Amino acid sequence: MNQLYVGIDLGGTNIKLGCFDENMDILYKDNVPTNVGDGPDSIVDRIARAVEDMLAFHNLDTRLITALGIGSPGLIDAENGIVVTTANMGLKNFPLRDLLSQRLHCPVVLENDANIACWAERVAGAGAGCDNMLLLALGTGVGGGIVSDGELVHGWANKAGELGHIVVYPDGRRCGCGQNGCVEAYSSANSTAARALEQIQQGRDSTLEYLYQLNGKITAKDVFNHASKGDPLAIEVTDLTAKALAILCVGLFHFTGPEKIVFFGGMTKAGDLLLDPIKRHFDEQYWTIDNEKPELCLGMLGNDAGIIGSAALAQHCLNCGKFIAIAS
Amino acid sequence: MNQLYVGIDLGGTNIKLGCFDENMDILYKDNVPTNVGDGPDSIVDRIARAVEDMLAFHNLDTRLITALGIGSPGLIDAENGIVVTTANMGLKNFPLRDLLSQRLHCPVVLENDANIACWAERVAGAGAGCDNMLLLALGTGVGGGIVSDGELVHGWANKAGELGHIVVYPDGRRCGCGQNGCVEAYSSANSTAARALEQIQQGRDSTLEYLYQLNGKITAKDVFNHASKGDPLAIEVTDLTAKALAILCVGLFHFTGPEKIVFFGGMTKAGDLLLDPIKRHFDEQYWTIDNEKPELCLGMLGNDAGIIGSAALAQHCLNCGKFIAIAS
Repeated sequence: MNQLYVGIDLGGTNIKLGCFDENMDILYKDNVPTNVGDGPDSIVDRIARAVEDMLAFHNLDTRLITALGIGSPGLIDAENGIVVTTANMGLKNFPLRDLLSQRLHCPVVLENDANIACWAERVAGAGAGCDNMLLLALGTGVGGGIVSDGELVHGWANKAGELGHIVVYPDGRRCGCGQNGCVEAYSSANSTAARALEQIQQGRDSTLEYLYQLNGKITAKDVFNHASKGDPLAIEVTDLTAKALAILCVGLFHFTGPEKIVFFGGMTKAGDLLLDPIKRHFDEQYWTIDNEKPELCLGMLGNDAGIIGSAALAQHCLNCGKFIAIAS
Repeated sequence: MNQLYVGIDLGGTNIKLGCFDENMDILYKDNVPTNVGDGPDSIVDRIARAVEDMLAFHNLDTRLITALGIGSPGLIDAENGIVVTTANMGLKNFPLRDLLSQRLHCPVVLENDANIACWAERVAGAGAGCDNMLLLALGTGVGGGIVSDGELVHGWANKAGELGHIVVYPDGRRCGCGQNGCVEAYSSANSTAARALEQIQQGRDSTLEYLYQLNGKITAKDVFNHASKGDPLAIEVTDLTAKALAILCVGLFHFTGPEKIVFFGGMTKAGDLLLDPIKRHFDEQYWTIDNEKPELCLGMLGNDAGIIGSAALAQHCLNCGKFIAIAS
């Protein structure tokens, strides 16, 4: 084996890890619980030991690691390798990259998890080979990553990529961020479910009502399920989820000119039920003066995106010398 | 003199040109009529002769030119130095960069005029020193340029930077591009004037009405003048021009994270009358979870931006070897 790359997907519940060759073909993967309650230093230790154990199990040594990449939720300062804040892991201004590099004696790259997913799809998924692409991560919230001219975009003070908080309906629905009309307030899983529930509580007929009485809640998955069975309210709610995303995509395209916009995350399990109306609304909204338009498509990598993207980014950063901690 | 850079601002009516030292201090400037009716080859000849004449007048030779930059309206393929189309200069798939380089025997860079203005403000104006900034060109239409990580963004097939056609009001006013609700349909000079006129024709009282009876038209400048004198309709129209731009800026900021957003072009002669309500609406729309926000400001370079930006871009591209034709 010539080169060995390790990718880590750090989550609030689990740490996923994978081992890749220089072609980003996966060799091994594993996962361990994060145990965030044990504190920041313990997280470094758990990651390092998980890597050591995975390699040892295959009779390999950490000295063979060419480079390691790690994706983390929260606000990340990729240039300096710091987890600035996380919503639920208790990390604050934490130099995760350098600590891991010192512990494992290998070059390490740290990046935001949405950027990692974007890089994964760009290297090995739906955006393979695209120097200009976007990823929209549709889950509880809406996040994103931007590749422009072959590089991830970070912006001033790592402010780039908050794609969920682009305003699509001025003076529209209140978003958790304090703005009105964000795409996240229409198209996240939470907002999709909330819009359905509001309608039911206002007395709209829907097959979702029985489910609500039964479970005391409605999820986006429920909405999509009932839409697929023809419930008019569920179809209407799904349509607005798709329309807000389509309006966003028109704007995103006119901004950085991506060749592909890749939809990623839990909500994309709805598949064509969600993608088809996004495409339809995009075509209805899109200008008439140019036939060329971006391809709107679903991500291909699912749960492995985190480990693939972080390993592939480690390889990229090692090659260009950017944003990487080289252990002494 | 160590180095000599020439910047050309190609317009439908005039060709402006300037001569700069390596610090981008201006040495000489000049302008000649474009005479577009004479055809594409004649444009190359007129540019080249204007450069030769300007230098000769100062006892200099074109062999002293270190590099030359040229900004052109229309769709530009900067990588290949081609004017793909122009609205009113009759150029189509025209290899302007290489023809000029062969004629003047110097390295030449060609770029879109909005990108040139953006680069000018980035090097020597309101965005000086910013690696992440945007320029919004407010004139008859709305255009823009993007600097991300210190480089101009072109996107896939030069699609980036159509900032005027980002949708701010879904299902809103019809734009000339065929979309509904583009920022250009609210905030360009034409749209600002059109919105005022529509209100008057619907019977709204305004001091602008007399002007319309007199001249048969209303301009954005008229709207701003009357707003400054307290006409309620003119104030209301100006406010929506500003609000649409503010909503755009919130989205632009969450996208590529610019440190500064620079307003440029004819409409910015309105100064604080336009900038103040943009800032106010931005603050009203902007999220509450982060105090850091981009600076919104007016461009500083006015009519000289075209020659400064093209000369400065020539210097930049010569240094990094990108998008430049090196004459044999």
